[in-house]
Amino acid sequence: MAKLVHSMIRVLDEARSVAYYEKAFGLRVVDRVAFPDFTLVYMAGDEVGFELELTINHGRTEPYALGDGYGHLAVVVDDLDAEYARFTAEGLTVGKLVDFKNGDVPVGRFFFATDPDGYKIEVIQKGGRFM
Amino acid sequence: MAKLVHSMIRVLDEARSVAYYEKAFGLRVVDRVAFPDFTLVYMAGDEVGFELELTINHGRTEPYALGDGYGHLAVVVDDLDAEYARFTAEGLTVGKLVDFKNGDVPVGRFFFATDPDGYKIEVIQKGGRFM
Repeated sequence: MAKLVHSMIRVLDEARSVAYYEKAFGLRVVDRVAFPDFTLVYMAGDEVGFELELTINHGRTEPYALGDGYGHLAVVVDDLDAEYARFTAEGLTVGKLVDFKNGDVPVGRFFFATDPDGYKIEVIQKGGRFM
Repeated sequence: MAKLVHSMIRVLDEARSVAYYEKAFGLRVVDRVAFPDFTLVYMAGDEVGFELELTINHGRTEPYALGDGYGHLAVVVDDLDAEYARFTAEGLTVGKLVDFKNGDVPVGRFFFATDPDGYKIEVIQKGGRFM
Protein backbone atom coordinates (compact mmCIF):
# COMPACT_ATOMS: atom_id res chain seq x y z
CA MET A 1 0.00 0.00 0.00
CA ALA A 2 1.37 3.36 -1.01
CA LYS A 3 0.80 6.38 1.19
CA LEU A 4 0.16 9.81 -0.34
CA VAL A 5 2.76 12.23 1.04
CA HIS A 6 3.06 15.34 -1.09
CA SER A 7 2.12 17.26 -4.21
CA MET A 8 4.79 19.20 -6.07
CA ILE A 9 4.43 22.43 -8.05
CA ARG A 10 7.13 24.57 -9.63
CA VAL A 11 7.11 28.22 -8.60
CA LEU A 12 9.20 31.20 -9.67
CA ASP A 13 9.84 33.03 -6.39
CA GLU A 14 10.45 31.07 -3.19
CA ALA A 15 9.84 33.92 -0.76
CA ARG A 16 6.67 35.05 -2.53
CA SER A 17 5.16 31.56 -2.55
CA VAL A 18 6.13 30.74 1.03
CA ALA A 19 4.60 34.02 2.21
CA TYR A 20 1.42 33.26 0.26
CA TYR A 21 0.90 29.75 1.59
CA GLU A 22 1.65 30.95 5.13
CA LYS A 23 -0.78 33.83 4.98
CA ALA A 24 -3.52 32.18 2.95
CA PHE A 25 -3.60 28.71 4.51
CA GLY A 26 -1.41 28.78 7.60
CA LEU A 27 1.09 26.29 6.17
CA ARG A 28 4.61 26.31 7.60
CA VAL A 29 7.96 25.41 6.05
CA VAL A 30 8.87 22.00 7.49
CA ASP A 31 11.94 21.37 5.36
CA ARG A 32 14.10 23.12 2.78
CA VAL A 33 16.82 21.52 0.69
CA ALA A 34 18.99 23.70 -1.55
CA PHE A 35 20.80 22.18 -4.53
CA PRO A 36 23.07 24.01 -6.97
CA ASP A 37 20.36 24.32 -9.61
CA PHE A 38 17.14 24.21 -7.62
CA THR A 39 15.65 24.41 -4.14
CA LEU A 40 12.94 22.21 -2.64
CA VAL A 41 10.65 23.63 0.05
CA TYR A 42 8.18 21.44 1.95
CA MET A 43 5.20 23.11 3.61
CA ALA A 44 2.57 21.52 5.85
CA GLY A 45 -0.30 22.29 8.17
CA ASP A 46 -0.83 20.89 11.63
CA GLU A 47 -3.46 18.29 10.94
CA VAL A 48 -2.49 16.05 8.04
CA GLY A 49 0.71 14.28 7.16
CA PHE A 50 0.49 15.57 3.61
CA GLU A 51 2.81 18.30 2.35
CA LEU A 52 3.01 20.81 -0.46
CA GLU A 53 6.41 20.66 -2.16
CA LEU A 54 7.59 23.80 -3.95
CA THR A 55 10.37 23.46 -6.52
CA ILE A 56 12.27 26.64 -7.34
CA ASN A 57 14.49 26.28 -10.40
CA HIS A 58 17.25 28.84 -9.95
CA GLY A 59 17.38 31.46 -12.65
CA ARG A 60 13.98 30.63 -14.09
CA THR A 61 12.04 33.78 -14.86
CA GLU A 62 9.59 32.62 -17.54
CA PRO A 63 6.16 31.85 -16.05
CA TYR A 64 5.37 28.15 -15.97
CA ALA A 65 2.85 26.77 -18.45
CA LEU A 66 0.01 25.56 -16.25
CA GLY A 67 -1.85 23.69 -18.98
CA ASP A 68 -5.40 22.41 -18.52
CA GLY A 69 -4.73 19.03 -16.93
CA TYR A 70 -3.79 19.70 -13.33
CA GLY A 71 -6.70 21.20 -11.46
CA HIS A 72 -6.04 22.29 -7.92
CA LEU A 73 -5.06 21.53 -4.38
CA ALA A 74 -8.02 21.65 -1.99
CA VAL A 75 -8.23 22.63 1.66
CA VAL A 76 -11.10 22.65 4.13
CA VAL A 77 -11.69 25.44 6.62
CA ASP A 78 -13.96 25.75 9.65
CA ASP A 79 -15.61 29.01 8.60
CA LEU A 80 -15.71 29.61 4.86
CA ASP A 81 -17.45 32.98 5.09
CA ALA A 82 -14.87 34.29 7.54
CA GLU A 83 -12.03 33.02 5.34
CA TYR A 84 -13.59 34.59 2.26
CA ALA A 85 -13.82 37.91 4.07
CA ARG A 86 -10.24 37.60 5.30
CA PHE A 87 -8.85 36.74 1.86
CA THR A 88 -10.71 39.69 0.39
CA ALA A 89 -9.54 42.07 3.12
CA GLU A 90 -5.94 40.95 2.69
CA GLY A 91 -6.06 41.44 -1.07
CA LEU A 92 -5.60 37.74 -1.88
CA THR A 93 -7.06 36.76 -5.24
CA VAL A 94 -10.33 34.88 -4.95
CA GLY A 95 -13.22 33.89 -7.18
CA LYS A 96 -16.86 33.87 -6.18
CA LEU A 97 -18.34 31.98 -3.26
CA VAL A 98 -20.15 28.99 -4.76
CA ASP A 99 -22.96 26.95 -3.24
CA PHE A 100 -22.50 23.84 -5.32
CA LYS A 101 -25.41 21.43 -5.86
CA ASN A 102 -26.00 18.36 -7.99
CA GLY A 103 -29.59 19.00 -8.99
CA ASP A 104 -31.09 19.61 -5.55
CA VAL A 105 -28.40 17.77 -3.60
CA PRO A 106 -25.87 20.02 -1.83
CA VAL A 107 -22.30 19.01 -2.68
CA GLY A 108 -20.32 21.73 -0.97
CA ARG A 109 -19.63 25.43 -0.50
CA PHE A 110 -16.30 26.72 -1.72
CA PHE A 111 -14.31 29.42 -3.43
CA PHE A 112 -11.15 29.26 -5.49
CA ALA A 113 -8.03 31.15 -4.53
CA THR A 114 -5.15 31.77 -6.94
CA ASP A 115 -1.53 31.59 -5.81
CA PRO A 116 1.23 33.92 -7.11
CA ASP A 117 2.08 31.58 -10.01
CA GLY A 118 -1.56 31.11 -11.01
CA TYR A 119 -2.22 27.71 -9.40
CA LYS A 120 -5.75 27.27 -8.07
CA ILE A 121 -6.55 26.26 -4.50
CA GLU A 122 -10.11 25.22 -3.69
CA VAL A 123 -11.18 26.40 -0.24
CA ILE A 124 -14.08 24.26 1.01
CA GLN A 125 -16.37 24.60 4.01
CA LYS A 126 -15.69 21.73 6.41
CA GLY A 127 -18.63 19.35 6.59
CA GLY A 128 -20.16 16.25 5.04
CA ARG A 129 -17.45 14.37 3.17
CA PHE A 130 -15.09 17.34 3.28
CA MET A 131 -13.54 16.81 6.71
CA MET B 1 -5.90 26.82 9.84
CA ALA B 2 -6.69 25.17 6.54
CA LYS B 3 -6.37 21.40 6.17
CA LEU B 4 -5.09 19.88 2.94
CA VAL B 5 -7.72 17.40 1.68
CA HIS B 6 -7.24 16.59 -1.98
CA SER B 7 -5.43 17.21 -5.27
CA MET B 8 -7.43 17.28 -8.49
CA ILE B 9 -6.33 16.20 -11.95
CA ARG B 10 -8.38 15.94 -15.13
CA VAL B 11 -8.28 12.56 -16.85
CA LEU B 12 -9.79 11.28 -20.09
CA ASP B 13 -10.97 7.80 -19.17
CA GLU B 14 -12.49 7.13 -15.74
CA ALA B 15 -12.19 3.34 -15.82
CA ARG B 16 -8.61 3.43 -17.09
CA SER B 17 -7.46 5.87 -14.41
CA VAL B 18 -9.29 4.15 -11.57
CA ALA B 19 -7.78 0.82 -12.59
CA TYR B 20 -4.33 2.38 -12.73
CA TYR B 21 -4.44 4.03 -9.31
CA GLU B 22 -5.88 0.84 -7.79
CA LYS B 23 -3.22 -1.41 -9.31
CA ALA B 24 -0.25 0.92 -8.98
CA PHE B 25 -0.86 2.41 -5.53
CA GLY B 26 -3.67 0.47 -3.91
CA LEU B 27 -5.98 3.49 -3.81
CA ARG B 28 -9.73 2.83 -3.62
CA VAL B 29 -12.70 4.83 -4.87
CA VAL B 30 -14.21 6.44 -1.77
CA ASP B 31 -16.76 8.63 -3.54
CA ARG B 32 -18.09 9.27 -7.02
CA VAL B 33 -20.41 12.10 -8.04
CA ALA B 34 -21.81 12.20 -11.57
CA PHE B 35 -23.01 15.49 -13.05
CA PRO B 36 -24.49 16.00 -16.52
CA ASP B 37 -21.23 17.31 -17.97
CA PHE B 38 -18.58 15.76 -15.77
CA THR B 39 -17.91 13.13 -13.12
CA LEU B 40 -15.81 13.48 -9.96
CA VAL B 41 -14.09 10.42 -8.49
CA TYR B 42 -12.33 10.53 -5.13
CA MET B 43 -9.66 7.92 -4.40
CA ALA B 44 -7.78 7.34 -1.16
CA GLY B 45 -5.44 4.97 0.60
CA ASP B 46 -5.87 3.60 4.10
CA GLU B 47 -3.39 5.74 5.98
CA VAL B 48 -3.88 9.42 5.24
CA GLY B 49 -6.95 11.59 5.07
CA PHE B 50 -5.81 13.01 1.76
CA GLU B 51 -7.50 12.08 -1.50
CA LEU B 52 -6.83 12.14 -5.21
CA GLU B 53 -9.75 13.71 -7.08
CA LEU B 54 -10.19 12.72 -10.72
CA THR B 55 -12.33 14.94 -12.94
CA ILE B 56 -13.70 13.34 -16.08
CA ASN B 57 -15.19 15.86 -18.51
CA HIS B 58 -17.74 13.93 -20.54
CA GLY B 59 -17.00 13.85 -24.24
CA ARG B 60 -13.45 15.13 -23.91
CA THR B 61 -11.11 13.16 -26.12
CA GLU B 62 -8.22 15.58 -26.67
CA PRO B 63 -5.32 14.84 -24.32
CA TYR B 64 -4.90 17.42 -21.59
CA ALA B 65 -2.02 19.88 -21.83
CA LEU B 66 0.13 19.03 -18.81
CA GLY B 67 2.40 22.08 -19.04
CA ASP B 68 5.62 22.38 -17.05
CA GLY B 69 4.27 23.85 -13.80
CA TYR B 70 2.60 21.02 -11.95
CA GLY B 71 5.13 18.39 -10.99
CA HIS B 72 3.77 15.27 -9.38
CA LEU B 73 1.95 13.52 -6.60
CA ALA B 74 4.29 11.56 -4.33
CA VAL B 75 3.75 8.37 -2.38
CA VAL B 76 5.97 6.43 0.01
CA VAL B 77 6.21 2.64 0.01
CA ASP B 78 7.75 0.18 2.45
CA ASP B 79 9.88 -1.66 -0.10
CA LEU B 80 10.89 0.40 -3.11
CA ASP B 81 12.83 -2.37 -4.83
CA ALA B 82 9.89 -4.75 -4.58
CA GLU B 83 7.52 -2.09 -5.92
CA TYR B 84 9.87 -1.30 -8.78
CA ALA B 85 10.00 -4.99 -9.70
CA ARG B 86 6.22 -5.27 -9.44
CA PHE B 87 5.57 -2.18 -11.60
CA THR B 88 7.98 -3.51 -14.20
CA ALA B 89 6.44 -7.00 -14.15
CA GLU B 90 2.94 -5.56 -14.53
CA GLY B 91 3.97 -3.40 -17.46
CA LEU B 92 3.38 -0.10 -15.64
CA THR B 93 5.47 2.76 -17.00
CA VAL B 94 8.41 3.65 -14.78
CA GLY B 95 11.63 5.62 -15.03
CA LYS B 96 14.93 4.63 -13.49
CA LEU B 97 15.51 3.91 -9.82
CA VAL B 98 17.32 6.94 -8.44
CA ASP B 99 19.52 7.17 -5.35
CA PHE B 100 19.28 10.90 -4.81
CA LYS B 101 22.01 12.75 -2.91
CA ASN B 102 22.80 16.38 -2.21
CA GLY B 103 26.58 16.26 -2.50
CA ASP B 104 27.30 13.34 -0.15
CA VAL B 105 24.07 13.64 1.84
CA PRO B 106 21.43 11.02 0.99
CA VAL B 107 18.06 12.66 0.24
CA GLY B 108 15.98 9.70 -0.85
CA ARG B 109 15.55 6.73 -3.16
CA PHE B 110 12.72 6.91 -5.66
CA PHE B 111 11.41 6.26 -9.13
CA PHE B 112 8.81 8.06 -11.19
CA ALA B 113 5.73 6.30 -12.51
CA THR B 114 3.55 7.74 -15.27
CA ASP B 115 -0.23 7.42 -15.19
CA PRO B 116 -2.40 6.85 -18.30
CA ASP B 117 -2.76 10.61 -18.95
CA GLY B 118 0.94 11.29 -18.50
CA TYR B 119 0.91 12.63 -14.94
CA LYS B 120 3.99 11.73 -12.91
CA ILE B 121 3.85 10.00 -9.53
CA GLU B 122 7.02 9.90 -7.44
CA VAL B 123 7.37 6.61 -5.57
CA ILE B 124 9.70 7.08 -2.59
CA GLN B 125 11.27 4.59 -0.18
CA LYS B 126 9.81 5.15 3.28
CA GLY B 127 12.42 6.49 5.69
CA GLY B 128 13.95 9.67 7.04
CA ARG B 129 11.60 12.57 6.38
CA PHE B 130 9.55 10.53 3.92
CA MET B 131 7.21 8.74 6.31
